Formats: sequence, structure tokens, C-alpha cells
Amino acid sequence: MVPHLVTALTGPINELEQRILDSMPAIERWFRLEWMEHTPPFYSSVDIRNAGFKLAPVDTNLFPGGWNNLTPQMLPLAVQSAMAAIEKICPEAKNLLLIPENHTRNTFYLSNVAQLQRIFNMAGLNVRIGSINPEVKEPTEIQLPTGEKVLLEPVIRSKRRLGLKDFDPCTILLNNDLSAGAPGILEDLHEQYLLPPLHAGWSVRRKSNHFRAYEELSKRFGKLLGIDPWLINPMFNKCGEVDFASGTGLDCLQTNVDALLTKVRRKYKEYGINEKPFVIVKADNGTYGMGIMTVRDVKDLEALNRKSKNKMGVIKDGQTVHDVIIQEGVLTNERMNEGVAEPVVYMMDRYVVGGFYRVHAERGTDENLNAPGSSFVPLAFAESSHLPQVGMRGGAAVPNRFYMYGVIARLAMVAASYELEATDPDAEIYE
Amino acid sequence: MVPHLVTALTGPINELEQRILDSMPAIERWFRLEWMEHTPPFYSSVDIRNAGFKLAPVDTNLFPGGWNNLTPQMLPLAVQSAMAAIEKICPEAKNLLLIPENHTRNTFYLSNVAQLQRIFNMAGLNVRIGSINPEVKEPTEIQLPTGEKVLLEPVIRSKRRLGLKDFDPCTILLNNDLSAGAPGILEDLHEQYLLPPLHAGWSVRRKSNHFRAYEELSKRFGKLLGIDPWLINPMFNKCGEVDFASGTGLDCLQTNVDALLTKVRRKYKEYGINEKPFVIVKADNGTYGMGIMTVRDVKDLEALNRKSKNKMGVIKDGQTVHDVIIQEGVLTNERMNEGVAEPVVYMMDRYVVGGFYRVHAERGTDENLNAPGSSFVPLAFAESSHLPQVGMRGGAAVPNRFYMYGVIARLAMVAASYELEATDPDAEIYE
Repeated sequence: MVPHLVTALTGPINELEQRILDSMPAIERWFRLEWMEHTPPFYSSVDIRNAGFKLAPVDTNLFPGGWNNLTPQMLPLAVQSAMAAIEKICPEAKNLLLIPENHTRNTFYLSNVAQLQRIFNMAGLNVRIGSINPEVKEPTEIQLPTGEKVLLEPVIRSKRRLGLKDFDPCTILLNNDLSAGAPGILEDLHEQYLLPPLHAGWSVRRKSNHFRAYEELSKRFGKLLGIDPWLINPMFNKCGEVDFASGTGLDCLQTNVDALLTKVRRKYKEYGINEKPFVIVKADNGTYGMGIMTVRDVKDLEALNRKSKNKMGVIKDGQTVHDVIIQEGVLTNERMNEGVAEPVVYMMDRYVVGGFYRVHAERGTDENLNAPGSSFVPLAFAESSHLPQVGMRGGAAVPNRFYMYGVIARLAMVAASYELEATDPDAEIYE
Repeated sequence: MVPHLVTALTGPINELEQRILDSMPAIERWFRLEWMEHTPPFYSSVDIRNAGFKLAPVDTNLFPGGWNNLTPQMLPLAVQSAMAAIEKICPEAKNLLLIPENHTRNTFYLSNVAQLQRIFNMAGLNVRIGSINPEVKEPTEIQLPTGEKVLLEPVIRSKRRLGLKDFDPCTILLNNDLSAGAPGILEDLHEQYLLPPLHAGWSVRRKSNHFRAYEELSKRFGKLLGIDPWLINPMFNKCGEVDFASGTGLDCLQTNVDALLTKVRRKYKEYGINEKPFVIVKADNGTYGMGIMTVRDVKDLEALNRKSKNKMGVIKDGQTVHDVIIQEGVLTNERMNEGVAEPVVYMMDRYVVGGFYRVHAERGTDENLNAPGSSFVPLAFAESSHLPQVGMRGGAAVPNRFYMYGVIARLAMVAASYELEATDPDAEIYE
């Protein structure tokens, strides 16, 4: 079950959605059984694309920012989930150290940090914020436009533990995706819980690992629902050793883009879909919406200009792109305030706690919306007093469209769990 | 953490409440540690009285009805908690059999049954309703004023299992408090999960056991907060062998009423409280607001007329009263729509999921409100975008007054957990 939120799409329910709503008890049980065997990521957010004819996750973030976009009404769910997460991992916890990203001047990001501090404080922890930015040399209070204040304190590393002055946390929550690699200061902390683990950072993660795990899950889940897994799975290929600057590896990229476009075209034909297929070329370890390109025709790749090549070649924290994932593009047919929109679903532990729309007025339905100029529209709880019940149709009952998004987001979360198990340096504990 | 709900009281926060808000992380951790050692009741509701100077639970229900009084906005929390409860007890569950009270014509109660069916359905279970009322001989569909329908089906007992025609549940959820004792049909069901257990029924439970456990907890909790436990604990005495009809045992009652009134008077003097002390005399195993009497002076007991004696002597399902609890009366200084009000807090597993006010326009601040003529006002989520933060005072922040109610309700829930352990017929498993 996920919150009953008002979504932008209000048209008739398509077959996929009806299938998902009708299978609710089976789906929930499926998730319950998965979580008996696997550990959910501590928290996560999933970008989802709803093309009408297909619905798929396109990115799964294991260090989600943007918690400040959730409405106050969603906070109790977030707090309850945070309590559940803490209870399982470290019930005796008193102090939690939150480690944010290093950009200390982005007040929008810092509002997210303040929101996380609030959530875990309400879950019953003393929360302080420890910066690993070497520029933060003393406690620095930052006033946010919302009236809130955030106090960044420099972390102090002892031989075995990380903390702040007069603050020894038993749990460390990372909200820093470690794109540039885990700093030494975070390594060998065997006495403290580090959440998520270091190998969830982008210096280790690969989108292709994630979507490979998701693909396998979508097959099993498709069998459960009796649907073609393609309806929920974005196909992908990958290329290693690509260097956009020198042109090395671009032949691999062309071959794979061409092959994937052909596969998508075949699927569109099978389902009688009159849309132009496209693929998204992304850095396999990219984040923050950097290093992403929409390709509608393999010829587009030949015509890449210097600017585009530079943009593709370098991502967050100045990391160079080598591995590239070519992902089937999924159109979004959601719109909000005249802008193209995609839902982002937030989860804590195994629970969906809320979501919002990422909206971009100047982007097309086949483009990445995680780019400068995007805005966020929180989803509200539905006002209707009639919630959907299996077996109830029509009448006053408003379908919980968000349920479907929550299901797909959780499927991506299970994939992330598999992915983290497979890349765990201490993997033997899972056998 | 509990939902941030709008409460009737909006005056300045008193010292007790401020202490509770300031101690939030320590309180939440205290509960976390309790739940490491003890199992929360499957679900519960707690009636709370806020006298301004003291705040105490006055009744804890382990088969709560009235779930229909929760707002749709609270449903996600209820469903999330239901998922957590099911996951812990029987994650592989598919089918859940809900056993309601036997009064099949009370559509208000049946709306509660429909709501429970919805909650557990959204948590991912196939839910059907099995009546143990011998009058229900075939599937009976009842149309509710809300437009909903409830299908009551006669239960079928095999040698080892209970179910319905073509429905074999692995879990049975009781919403019937078994005042008349557990029927044989519910006994020896060793292959199925029966929730709550039979000894949570009123044929076994005693309010005095519950409040004895609560008293012990209030001492420990008082130490944690640095407060006099009396501020959260209703004192009590008990008398056995009382027969209102014949007058047997009324001397014990008088002695204990007098003694308790004296104790309360002393406490009021200590705190400079200018209110008239009173006690509540209740059946020790009573429920449904039956067998309850407010006593302001021991002379009131001598003047008991026949009608009052009859009312006190017989409670739900025609059970005769023998054991009586004399509980310190706690004034309520909450009012809603001109009526005297008391908050009722709903919990599922260890989580507070919402609450409402029980309001009675014709009762006084020192009387039982659970009586014909009472109505229910759901609490709404607070609209304020500023939630309280430890260390933040005044300004735009609206305090979450409901937090305090949730803390006291959860303390009563822990007491219920201790009580159930102490009365468990298979108690050796707890050692």
C-alpha cells in the first residue's frame, strides 16, 4: 500500500494499471516475501516515466535529496518509516550524524538536509550535521530562505570512529552520493553503522547493474501479473571504454544505439504504438542529471558537437565518463502547469512515503527533466473519502493512480537491494 | 513520533507537555528498547483524559472499534502499520479472516468492520468477514448508510482450522472482545494465527491488571522525564466479591472510595489544584462504557438507588459484575462544539495511526463520555508547514499537542503488552 495521492493523469485506467490494482494483495505479498530474503536500501527515490502504454523506472537514487519537496502531510509516514528502519538496524541508537553533500551554498539542498534532520529527530534521535567538506573548519550556521537554520559542523575522525565535537554518534546517515569516491575519513568505521553502505555510492554503483537486476525482477513480476515485462521494463545496452573527447568507443555506442532503437521499434509495432522510439545515453555512474543525452536516430551521434561531447564526458564532482548505458527512452505523458512532468517516488525502508512531480516547462516528453529550470510540485493526499477497494469499480471511488507508481518504485527498490548484495565487498554474509 | 493532528486545546503548553516535547528523542528511544523486549498488542485504542495539570489513560481497548472515525488521510499510516504488523507475525499470509462483534444490525459498528477490511486489504491481504453469531447461517450482505456493503459469512470450523466456505485463512483477526468468554469454536486453533490472543478478551482481562502494569511503567517513565509519575498515572484500588443487587461487598467499596478520594485530595493540595476530587467506579472486566459510575463523595454510594445498582451490576453480553476497580477520576478540560471531549488514540502494532475526540454534549467534565449520545470528531492533520523541532520555540511553529497524547497512549500500550505477558497461559515462552 502507498499513500493515496492526487496525480496529474486522470484519464481512464489502462489495462496495465487495472491489472496492478486487481492484483494488490498478491503484489503486497510478493513484496513481503522479497523483504524476508533481502534488505531494503535505507532510503531511496525513483524517477518514473508513464508513457500510458508503458510505465518504467528510469533512475534510482540511493542518497535521495529533495525530501523538502514532500508535503507536511507526508511527514508522519516518513517518520514512521524512519522509526521502522532505525528499529531494525540499531534500536539502541541515540545520536545520528547526517553527512550531506559538500555544496554548502545551495539553500535548496540544505532545506532537504533540514527536512532529514527533522524526520530523524521526530523518529527519536539526536541529529547533528557533519560536513566532510574541507572548507567547513568550524561550526557554520546557515540561514535558509524558509526561516530554518542549518548548522554544519566539521567532522572529527578518531582511529575507529567518526563524530563531531562532543557528539559521538552510533549511526551515520550519508546523504552524499560519494561520486568522487569514498573519502578515507569514512572508511574502516567498524564500530558505527554507516547507512547506506559505502558501496552504494556512485564510485561503485553502475546503472547497468541496477537495471540488469530490475530486468530480472520485471520478468518474475510480469509472470505474477500475467503481463509482458516490457510494459514495466526499460530495455538497455552498455558500452565500456567510451571517450567522448577523443571519439574512442563511439562505434560501440552507435552499434548499440542502433540495435536498441530497432528493438524498441519492434515492440512499438507489436503494440501498435505510433510514437517515435528514442534512447537515452547516460553515464553508467552518473547522477544529478549530468551526462544524459536523448538520441532519436543513430545519425544524431555523428553530428555531436564539441559542447555536447564535453557535457557528456564529465559528470558530478568532475568525474570522467568511461562507461555508458544506453536505455530505452520512455515517454512521459504527464503534464503539470503546462510543463512535462515525471513522478518521483520517495521511500524509506520498504515503505513508500510520498512523492512529487518533477516538472520542466522547456523540455519535451522524450527528454531528461532533471536539468536546470525544473521545478517540483508536491503530490497531495487525495481528498476523496472513498479509497479504492478490490472489486469496487466506478461510482464515487477515485482510483489510487499513485499506487501503481509506488509498485514500480518498490520494484526498483528491490532491484537496488539485489544490486547492493551483488556488489557488497563483504558478500559472503549473504550466502 | 505520532501524526501531527489538530487538537482542541490551543492554550499555552504546560510544563508536563514541554517536558515531553523536549524529551522526544529519549522517549522514542525508550519505546524502541521496550519493543525489543516486549511484543506490542496487534492493535489498540486508548481513551485519554487531559485535565491540564495531569494527563492519563483511563481505558485501553485491545479490540478497538471505531476505525471508521479515522479520516482518509490517516489511512496510509494505518495501512503502513498493518503491513509492519503482518510482516512480523505472518509475512507469508494471503488470507485474513476478520471476526466482528455479533451485533449485526449496528451499521455504525459495521462501518468499522468495513474500514478494517479496507485497511488489511490495502496492506495486501484477501480479507473476508466471518461471523460467530449463530444467527448468521448463510452469507448475508448488509448495505451501510455510507453506500458500502459488508458481507458477513458464517464461520466453518474443521478439526484444526477455522474458515469460511472456500476460504482457508492463515490469520484470524478478532474484532470481538469475547466478553462472554471465548467460544469453543475459537479454541485449539494451533495451525492458524489468532490475533489478538484469546486471553486479551474481557473474560480474562482485568482493568486492575492493566493499570497495575501501567503504574509500574509510569514510575520508570516518570524517572526518565524527571516528573512525579502521578502526573500521568490514575491511581486505583480494587474490590472483589461486590454484588450490587444484594449489597454484598459495598463496605469494601466505601472504604476504598474513601481512601482513594483522600489520596487524590492530598495530591490536589500538594499541587494547589482547586478542583473537587472524584473517582470512577467500574467493573474490572467491563467494556463498552457499561458499568461505570462517577463518585464525588463516599455518601453517594449509600444513596445508590435500584436503577443505578442494576446498571452497575450487569455489563456487556449480560455478564454479572463481581470485581470492581475504583480509579482516580481525571477531569477533561477539552471541549469540542460545546461538548465535553476526550481524545481516543488509535494504534496498530507499535505505531500511533490517528485519533479522534469522543464528545458528549450532556455530560460533565468528570463523567464517563462513552455513553449513548456521544459523537466522534476526527482529528485532522495540522495544516501548518512548520512542525515542531526540539530546540525550536514560539514563532510560527505550532506545537504538536497530539504528540503528548500519542506518548501516553503508547505507554498504556506497553502496559497492555506487560499485562498480556503476565496472563498468557503459555507464559513459559516469555522466560
